[in-house]
Amino acid sequence: MSSEFGNILHISVFGQSHGRAVGVVMDGLPAGEEIDLEALQRFLDRRRPGTGPLSTARRETDVPEFLSGLEDGRTCGAPLCAVIPNADQRSGDYGELADKPRPGHADFTAWAKWGGRADMRGGGHFSGRLTAPLCVAGGIAKQLLARRGVFVGAHLAAVAGIPDAPFPLHPTAALFAEIAARPFPVLDEEAGERMRAAILAAKNDLDSVGGVVECAAIGLPPGLGDPMFGGVENRLAAALFGIPAVKGVEFGAGFGAAELRGSENNDPFRVEEGRIRAESNHAGGILGGITTGMPLVLRAAVKPTPSIGRAQRTVRLSRLEDTGLTIHGRHDPCVAHRAVPVAEAVTAAVLLDMLLEGNHGTF
Amino acid sequence: MSSEFGNILHISVFGQSHGRAVGVVMDGLPAGEEIDLEALQRFLDRRRPGTGPLSTARRETDVPEFLSGLEDGRTCGAPLCAVIPNADQRSGDYGELADKPRPGHADFTAWAKWGGRADMRGGGHFSGRLTAPLCVAGGIAKQLLARRGVFVGAHLAAVAGIPDAPFPLHPTAALFAEIAARPFPVLDEEAGERMRAAILAAKNDLDSVGGVVECAAIGLPPGLGDPMFGGVENRLAAALFGIPAVKGVEFGAGFGAAELRGSENNDPFRVEEGRIRAESNHAGGILGGITTGMPLVLRAAVKPTPSIGRAQRTVRLSRLEDTGLTIHGRHDPCVAHRAVPVAEAVTAAVLLDMLLEGNHGTF
Amino acid sequence: MSSEFGNILHISVFGQSHGRAVGVVMDGLPAGEEIDLEALQRFLDRRRPGTGPLSTARRETDVPEFLSGLEDGRTCGAPLCAVIPNADQRSGDYGELADKPRPGHADFTAWAKWGGRADMRGGGHFSGRLTAPLCVAGGIAKQLLARRGVFVGAHLAAVAGIPDAPFPLHPTAALFAEIAARPFPVLDEEAGERMRAAILAAKNDLDSVGGVVECAAIGLPPGLGDPMFGGVENRLAAALFGIPAVKGVEFGAGFGAAELRGSENNDPFRVEEGRIRAESNHAGGILGGITTGMPLVLRAAVKPTPSIGRAQRTVRLSRLEDTGLTIHGRHDPCVAHRAVPVAEAVTAAVLLDMLLEGNHGTF
Amino acid sequence: MSSEFGNILHISVFGQSHGRAVGVVMDGLPAGEEIDLEALQRFLDRRRPGTGPLSTARRETDVPEFLSGLEDGRTCGAPLCAVIPNADQRSGDYGELADKPRPGHADFTAWAKWGGRADMRGGGHFSGRLTAPLCVAGGIAKQLLARRGVFVGAHLAAVAGIPDAPFPLHPTAALFAEIAARPFPVLDEEAGERMRAAILAAKNDLDSVGGVVECAAIGLPPGLGDPMFGGVENRLAAALFGIPAVKGVEFGAGFGAAELRGSENNDPFRVEEGRIRAESNHAGGILGGITTGMPLVLRAAVKPTPSIGRAQRTVRLSRLEDTGLTIHGRHDPCVAHRAVPVAEAVTAAVLLDMLLEGNHGTF
Repeated sequence: MSSEFGNILHISVFGQSHGRAVGVVMDGLPAGEEIDLEALQRFLDRRRPGTGPLSTARRETDVPEFLSGLEDGRTCGAPLCAVIPNADQRSGDYGELADKPRPGHADFTAWAKWGGRADMRGGGHFSGRLTAPLCVAGGIAKQLLARRGVFVGAHLAAVAGIPDAPFPLHPTAALFAEIAARPFPVLDEEAGERMRAAILAAKNDLDSVGGVVECAAIGLPPGLGDPMFGGVENRLAAALFGIPAVKGVEFGAGFGAAELRGSENNDPFRVEEGRIRAESNHAGGILGGITTGMPLVLRAAVKPTPSIGRAQRTVRLSRLEDTGLTIHGRHDPCVAHRAVPVAEAVTAAVLLDMLLEGNHGTF
Repeated sequence: MSSEFGNILHISVFGQSHGRAVGVVMDGLPAGEEIDLEALQRFLDRRRPGTGPLSTARRETDVPEFLSGLEDGRTCGAPLCAVIPNADQRSGDYGELADKPRPGHADFTAWAKWGGRADMRGGGHFSGRLTAPLCVAGGIAKQLLARRGVFVGAHLAAVAGIPDAPFPLHPTAALFAEIAARPFPVLDEEAGERMRAAILAAKNDLDSVGGVVECAAIGLPPGLGDPMFGGVENRLAAALFGIPAVKGVEFGAGFGAAELRGSENNDPFRVEEGRIRAESNHAGGILGGITTGMPLVLRAAVKPTPSIGRAQRTVRLSRLEDTGLTIHGRHDPCVAHRAVPVAEAVTAAVLLDMLLEGNHGTF
Repeated sequence: MSSEFGNILHISVFGQSHGRAVGVVMDGLPAGEEIDLEALQRFLDRRRPGTGPLSTARRETDVPEFLSGLEDGRTCGAPLCAVIPNADQRSGDYGELADKPRPGHADFTAWAKWGGRADMRGGGHFSGRLTAPLCVAGGIAKQLLARRGVFVGAHLAAVAGIPDAPFPLHPTAALFAEIAARPFPVLDEEAGERMRAAILAAKNDLDSVGGVVECAAIGLPPGLGDPMFGGVENRLAAALFGIPAVKGVEFGAGFGAAELRGSENNDPFRVEEGRIRAESNHAGGILGGITTGMPLVLRAAVKPTPSIGRAQRTVRLSRLEDTGLTIHGRHDPCVAHRAVPVAEAVTAAVLLDMLLEGNHGTF
Repeated sequence: MSSEFGNILHISVFGQSHGRAVGVVMDGLPAGEEIDLEALQRFLDRRRPGTGPLSTARRETDVPEFLSGLEDGRTCGAPLCAVIPNADQRSGDYGELADKPRPGHADFTAWAKWGGRADMRGGGHFSGRLTAPLCVAGGIAKQLLARRGVFVGAHLAAVAGIPDAPFPLHPTAALFAEIAARPFPVLDEEAGERMRAAILAAKNDLDSVGGVVECAAIGLPPGLGDPMFGGVENRLAAALFGIPAVKGVEFGAGFGAAELRGSENNDPFRVEEGRIRAESNHAGGILGGITTGMPLVLRAAVKPTPSIGRAQRTVRLSRLEDTGLTIHGRHDPCVAHRAVPVAEAVTAAVLLDMLLEGNHGTF
């Protein structure tokens, strides 16, 4: 079992980059939920490769077809299956790669695992293409969450070491919508300009850059999550590491907290308008694995795209000898900005699952 | 369900800081495995608070009693249950805290979840005390792994921003043993001196510091783990966030990878002595969620101990009003060094589970 | 989460009777396995409604399309998704039923659960139609099992109280194949004649009959399964009750064992050709949840088709008042014979999952 | 993983018959629940071997010690661990059995699985002794259920083919309490007399008998459970087969339904006092895996105790040769009556888990 997560709401992703289709099954959705397909499409479009210089040449329309679970625009209790055909497959690009694992890709580990029997054309099941069905699931989850007052948003917190401004202490649904509408998902547009320049510079060097996605969720009730291994952090991290290229996940101050003193990192409590709030949010909305009611804030590190135009050293698997490799064809000089809606999608799916599961503290 | 993880090898932790005992059930251990109880005790002693100035005054002997699963020093196929009585409980320290959540602790979220019905004396089930049974499980897992050529070791990679040297590209079991035998678990003893000074300085300021634990595993076969959500990273992260105070987890270059270019971050492959190895290990031994056969390397960020002697702002839950709080009693100015064996324990338990599960690539 | 089972090999079924398609995702199949699509189709044809008098008029071709996981006729490590379009939907038949739950059907419970928001046309996700994708999964599992020396077969052990002969003590793969090739899946063709007569008699009475399916698996190694809740019986039963209309599951002598004495029910061991075998098989190949190496034998009770032509008493949900109901349209007077391959499918899927999981006794 | 079940409420059982203790961890209990320890003890006493002629000579006091999760008589949100020491161990009885698997016991399969490394003294982890901690968990679950209007009760439906009267269409909590208070748990005391006579007759013949336990739950809301593999039947069966000696599980009319016609088996609906009820309950309170609101009714077949005093044929494992075996020492001529509270316990634990999980139909 690999490509699945969730407890009450279980999500299974399937497909290979150059197979017939990619898709997703969502089992456990409540019934009667209207799905706004246009809003869903706008969400999907945010992760699609565009036409600009930052993106690959691959064109995907990414319009999901619903085979089950959605009737007359509403969920019907049965598992929902959405399929996105793979229109634009250029398997001819693959050839040589079957025998020469690309550094930084799953080619070698797939070979080790499946003894050369995997379909690794275009990255196969490890491809970023699989984030399309993930966004279908997450986009649907976002709609259900919004209906319950929970909003999830994200921005590109850094590219190539160039930081965006952080989320404010209390981000709003309006702010999330504003970032989502921008062509480049940053809070500080000037920082965004510099990020884009860094991406283009890498592209011109036949190289790539990585980045950091920061994601927040507001409107969660306090008391969600379980201690130790059933915490919100545990479940979110387990899912977020399923996004291709993610190599780190942190909550609140995260690794930065390791450099603070307790007096700096602790978030003092106070009463505001009859509710208990924290004055700061180094905890990222989670203490002991359980939500505080403050915004949930997490960051995911996205490594630089392993596919680069430069010559690289690798091995020829069939002969067990050293060789060189130059990857041709389309590839993104950066995938971090495209990972922004994907992080939202995964976060939303996990949070909806946890809300469906309930608090259970006192039942 | 909260305090459990694992698939073939399932580990359940129970107990509260000031209850009768803490303990663990390990279900799924192979039979006939000899457990070296002295070696296990030495491992447990590594996480115990010591007598030095860096530690709390609480004294625990932490000798596990085995109620089941271990007969004549060998596992017998049945679930293993180990219990550690809580000898030194000073519940008198608790009193005021029941109504005043300590900033940075789970007091508030436990109150939100269980409506004041939780046993939060000494942190209750959220206490670092729960890492004792976790180390029993992990210490046993380490012995089984070592018997199969897999070794897990860790060091304190940073305290208060002061870095230790990183693991070498190919750490050895001997190196792991050497660090484990040291009173302070660092590679660079001079850096260790400075870390200890920083901890003492925080203590003198009635404050605390955080740190980073770096953990490695060697001897894993390539091909372990599943794509997307069933990856080694997913499963390790899900468990590691169960260690109290962990707020970030990263693999290989982790968040640092987000600042590298692809040409820097990609690990070139080459053939060494008939095996495929990588020249560097920014991937931390994992590509696409699956092991490469290179050392698995991860880091966990440990926040500064939330219990500090300084006056802090909080609320009185019963009256919903602002108040002040000064925490008395024992507490560590730093828990990151004590988290070193705990990270090893959790990592070992997850890896043993995955090895038991097998590769399944070609079956 | 509802329509899923399996641990290493996870199977998700989706679709509604009158939706666009039904389908299945199999996550965790080993790679490189050749799938004989013709043999698979022959297996699927066994559960299809035929043209004879015993069956519904609904015509389905049931040819699965593989969207992922199968390339060039071989599994490729990625999740396999197979879809069967719903060609013949006559939703017009539904109408009145939306407000009048059919006795013995899930109409009422679906209404209670989903508040009228479920798509229950033709039984929706509860329809026997969902056994088509289940048979795709199970048919594939059967091929992988056969390649490893494990064979699964079933027959119709009873209809309307008329018993077939039981399996011999040591059924063979050849016997399974022979039954599978018959138009009516019984061991004793004379008994089969009487069963068919009973089905037709019920049909003529605008009524229906139930039956019992007996399923066996040979070639399993001893030692498979875990004690208590991880046993072979537990996992098979959990899946078998997912077949629509199954109301009982028993292993070996089953309920009959409750009427035997220990001296009759115990299976004496003896050595045969250097292997330990049992002289009888009241245990059905399982002791303590773990395989003995003798044939695994189970039976599932299939209730009479709830859709009958006779007038029945029910309620009008919208007005909460008593009413009458006469179901028109196509329906089988018996589904037990069609459940024979379905029971094989589910049994095979569970057993393959357990074989993939391994024994783990001594690792 | 073997000795565990449950999703939101997860139950792990540990211990061996002749080890230090048996016990259970319940993870996921709501907090603040008062546990009536006297009522719990009365429940535990129902499964304890008594002093009468129907029982073994083994004397167990079976008073659980609570190591965690229960403070001042109330659950506190943390996992609850209860331990029952094994006071009366006579391992001397074991000796010869280590090399001679007892027919009908798990001795052989444990040997096959763990290669002789299992602790099988007194049946080890497969012993009926493990039902003691199971009853601790189930007894607690029963108290929480009763507080929410759900009552679980059972009776001995048959012994050696002698039937008790069935439950009435609408059993009551008072009836459950009445049966529970009886020394022999039957509805029809005259039938109970005959059952006891049959047990004694078997005992005098150095033999044993089996039986059937019928269990019911009332007060469940309609709409609980999920379709296909997430149904109430699936989850109950998966757990019930974990009770030692259970070889069959059926719901409602069960295997009997296979002999009925649809017109007999279908339960007509009607409106009673503004609620939708069924006129009969062949469905056992479940349609499509989901509760109807009618009483849930199930039966479990308990095989005759495999330990009998008669000489039996078996093998000598070490020499792979045929041999004879006569089992000495204490053993029950029937365990079916002792399985009555165990079936209640398991049923209650599963139902509480499902109620905690919620309906999720419309959320």
